[in-house]
This record gives sequence, C-alpha cells and structure tokens, in this order.
Amino acid sequence: MALDKNIAVLIGGVGGAKLASGLVEAVPPERLTFIVNTGDDFWHLGLKICPDLDTLMYTLAGLVNREWGWGVADDSTVTLDSLARHYQVEPWFRLGDKDLATHLLRTHWLRLGHSLTEATACLGERLGLRATVLPMCDEEVPTMVNTVERGELGFQEYFVKHAWKPAIRAIRHHGCEKAGLSPGVRQALSDADIVLIAPSNPWLSLAPILAVPGFRDLLPGLAAPLVAVTPIIAGDAVKGPTAKIMRELGLEVSAREVARFYSGLIDGFVDDRRNQPFAMNGLRTVQLNTLMNDQADKVALARALLGWIGGWAV
Amino acid sequence: MALDKNIAVLIGGVGGAKLASGLVEAVPPERLTFIVNTGDDFWHLGLKICPDLDTLMYTLAGLVNREWGWGVADDSTVTLDSLARHYQVEPWFRLGDKDLATHLLRTHWLRLGHSLTEATACLGERLGLRATVLPMCDEEVPTMVNTVERGELGFQEYFVKHAWKPAIRAIRHHGCEKAGLSPGVRQALSDADIVLIAPSNPWLSLAPILAVPGFRDLLPGLAAPLVAVTPIIAGDAVKGPTAKIMRELGLEVSAREVARFYSGLIDGFVDDRRNQPFAMNGLRTVQLNTLMNDQADKVALARALLGWIGGWAV
Repeated sequence: MALDKNIAVLIGGVGGAKLASGLVEAVPPERLTFIVNTGDDFWHLGLKICPDLDTLMYTLAGLVNREWGWGVADDSTVTLDSLARHYQVEPWFRLGDKDLATHLLRTHWLRLGHSLTEATACLGERLGLRATVLPMCDEEVPTMVNTVERGELGFQEYFVKHAWKPAIRAIRHHGCEKAGLSPGVRQALSDADIVLIAPSNPWLSLAPILAVPGFRDLLPGLAAPLVAVTPIIAGDAVKGPTAKIMRELGLEVSAREVARFYSGLIDGFVDDRRNQPFAMNGLRTVQLNTLMNDQADKVALARALLGWIGGWAV
Repeated sequence: MALDKNIAVLIGGVGGAKLASGLVEAVPPERLTFIVNTGDDFWHLGLKICPDLDTLMYTLAGLVNREWGWGVADDSTVTLDSLARHYQVEPWFRLGDKDLATHLLRTHWLRLGHSLTEATACLGERLGLRATVLPMCDEEVPTMVNTVERGELGFQEYFVKHAWKPAIRAIRHHGCEKAGLSPGVRQALSDADIVLIAPSNPWLSLAPILAVPGFRDLLPGLAAPLVAVTPIIAGDAVKGPTAKIMRELGLEVSAREVARFYSGLIDGFVDDRRNQPFAMNGLRTVQLNTLMNDQADKVALARALLGWIGGWAV
C-alpha cells in the first residue's frame, strides 16, 4: 500500500474513532480527511456540542478518555455539579470541565460568525492534529429519533437521557433539505484515492452524512473505490445500539444487512472473520479481524484493509 | 429604625457587597433592592460576565470567596487551564469552574431572548436570595477607560489585564445614550423609603449607574432620602483604585471630594470617623466606623447608618 494516497473517511463516534486511531499510525496523517457525522450535535446550556467531532479530535490528540472512548481523560465535573447544586439544573448530559474548554471555544467562534468547518479546523490546529477533520456539513441537521414509547426525541435525549432504551420506529434528519456539501467535503472526496466508511452505526452515524443533499449523488462518480467496514461482529454490535436498532427496524442483525444498507454506493466491504461469509452481486468482500481491543489491533486492521484495497484498486 | 421600610441600594462590586452583607442582616432582606453597576460587564469566550452582579449574588448566597471578596469559594480552574494548555487561550481573566455555572446559565438565558433583569432574577431565585438584585439597565453600557499609557481600554482590560496600573485620563459609558431605566429599577426607586449609595468606587461603579438616561433626573423627585457612604477612609481607599483614580483625575483624595461628586443628588453622607470632618451646604453628615473587617462590622454599620437616617427622615 503506497503511502502517498489520499484517504477520506466517513465516520461517526466511538467505533469509528478506533479505526481512525489505527489509520493515523498506518499512513501519514496529512493524507487523511475525516468527514464526520454532525447529526448528534445539539445546543445545551447555550453551548454547541458536537459529540462525534469531539470524540474523533480527542482520540487523534491523545486526550480521549480511553475507558469510555469519548470525553477527555481525567476530567472533572465541577461546573456541572455547581449547576445542579446551586441552580437546580438537571445534569443529564455529562459536561466535563476539560471538555467544556472545547465547547466554549467552538461556541464562541460560531457566535462570531465562523462556520462549523472553520471552528473545527481551528480547534484541530490548536490541538496539533495532522489529519484533517471536517463536519459533514455546516448547516444544522439534527437527527430526530421517532420512538415507540416516547414519540420523537432529539438524538441526545434518545441516546443519553433515555440511554437508547426506547424502540426506534424511524429516524429523520431535520432540516437536511437546506444543507449542502461544504467546499471542504467536496474537495476531500474529489481528491480521495480511497473513501472508507468507518465501522460506526450505519443508521445513526452514517445515514446523516449520506442524507446531506449531493452526497449520495457524488459518490458513484468518484474515481476512488468506496469501502465500508462492518460494525457487526459475530452477530452483534461491539458496543452501542446498532444491533438493537437493526432488530427494531425489522432487519437481520448481520454484516450482510449492513452491506445491503450501503449497496449501490460501496465497491468493497470489510467483513469480520467471525461472521458468516456472504456474497453480494458486484461487491468485493474480505474477512479480517475488525475487533479493535487495543492500539495494535487498530493499526493492524488499518494496514490490512488498506493492503486489501491496494490489491484490487488504486 | 422601623423594619418595614423599603431600601434601594445603588451598588458596585466588592466594597458595596460588604455593606450589602450587613444590610441583609440588619433588615428583612425582602425589603432590599440592589441596583447594580453593569458597566464592568463584558463578553469573554462567548460568555456574558457580570462581575458586580456576581459578586453581590455570591455574597448574599454565602458562596463568595471570602478571601478575595469575589468569585466562588473553593473554586478550581480546570476549564481555564485546559483552554490555555490545549487551545493556547491566554487566561488573563479568571473563570473558576463553579463560577462558570453562573456565566453559562446567564448567557444561555440571554441568548434565548430574556433580558439581563430576567436572567438575574432567575439566578437570584435559584440561589435562594430573598433580596432583589437588579442590573442598572438591560442595555449594554460598557465602561471605557481612556488611559495615558495605553489609550482607551475596555474596563476588564484596564482593571484585570493591566491590573489598574495605567493612569486614567477619562471614563466614558459606551452606548449609554441608548440605555434607559428598566421598569424594575423605576419601581424600586419609587417604592423606596431610603435610597443608599454603597461605598463602591464613585467613578468606576456609581458613575455608570448615574449615566443611565433618566436616572439622575429621577432621583431629586423621590420622596426617599438619598444617602451615600464614603469609600475613602483615612485618606485612602480600603482596596482597589479609588484613591489612585482620584489623584489621576486631579482630585483631592478625601471623603469631601466624594460628597462633592454626589452633590445635588444626596441628602446625607456617611463619613468615616477616621476622616477629617467637613461641612457642605445642605448636606447632613455623620461619622461612623465604615471600615468593615468582619460581619459584625458590616451589620453594625448597616444598623448605625439606618438608625442615623431614621433620626432625621422616614
């Protein structure tokens, strides 16, 4: 696998960040552009919070709380505790004190009129990131989750406040009709020699990116091969609600179903070696160890999948 | 002194808060309305910060850092340290983690369209304050300090960043022509049986209040006596730049000069017993111990000055 290839990665939160962590060690980080789900973003206590952007940036900067896979390591919650104690503000969303630095600075820049792309670039630069991190778009496209038990919920209400317990009926991307591809995203995709879809939740993390108008139309015309990595291993999600959601949506919990979700878009699919092999018309597949328990696993998966792609493309 | 009198107090930061602390013990707090200088307010990292409102509220809520006289007791600076360490943001203005809870909530409410009066009332209510705390007005009227060494500075740049070292040439209240008396301030003044001017810095803390259009005109028509308390004791300020500024403005550092600043407005003046007595046409004066080293001093001063006013008015 040549090291001079440009790689664009469509990515969500925790699961995706693991692969990102391997990729930045497998290839020169300057060659990597991450196009990140912002459907989880929300405003909380006047602050713009971008969970997937933060998880990725903290991971790449070596600041992430390794135990959780998100948030900043060794963080405290003095401000949050004060809000609860002195001002009776229910602390349902964790805002660490170190984490707050990011939210404050981003919100400050957004309020000054900068785009989320610009604010993210500034944060990344100050954190010393060598890879490029882009929000999927600059407009707000909050993911709304229609649930059986509680009707429609904002994503963080569903995911954090109700701990993804309610059953999903449908998911929509509020305001997506007004969004569009940013110049940065367009450029990154057209410059890419490979486009990867990280092993993030297809319905919650990737669907919002694909819902940005222009995104789905652009992908088939790219010269670069498009390759997805399974988030389903041995018939289950590693962590998080992917398998639960698949069941709720009436889908079989399998890598094949994930590949079907991306069908028409992807040229290749990285399956896990623990899964039942499957064949799909026109789709190249490979079985690798996609379970990333430590940094060595992450780098090994990044190298193996790029090596595999190099064997039939670029 | 009857306990059923309404008292309005025009007040700035630290010096004023000491007297406030005595007043709430000397009379039923429900009878007290503080009309607070907001000329020191500023936006920092996207947060609206109101130092004098905060100092007063923290003092009344028993949260204030007693050593400093401002900020929250036992606070940390985890967020500020992260901003400096990870994002190279120069930490020239101290933002404690507990303190941040106040700034976040206030900013959130202001961004939702509430007035500063409303946001302050909500904060005060949640803090359990029984006295009423009002900003001097709802508009932003930032105090601008014209200095010999550095030209015009925003108040916090002058006061905190440059530690009130530059010499003052002039002070202006930016945008005051667009400000006006809020309904709450108007009501508090017309309901007042006594109006006090706290021993805060006349030029930096009281002048902004008096610069709100309508304020100076309203005072002479009030039925209530208006009484100021000296911030100058034994020819010097207790703390802060009052004496320094008086010298820079070419004034004698004396209680008499402070009384002259308020002349035409006040009916009575509480001088300190350490000062050289003076007489001013039509002004009642008394000499008391105005040096408030502990809570007993504060309550004693509050009781003594209200007793004195009760002797010739209300």
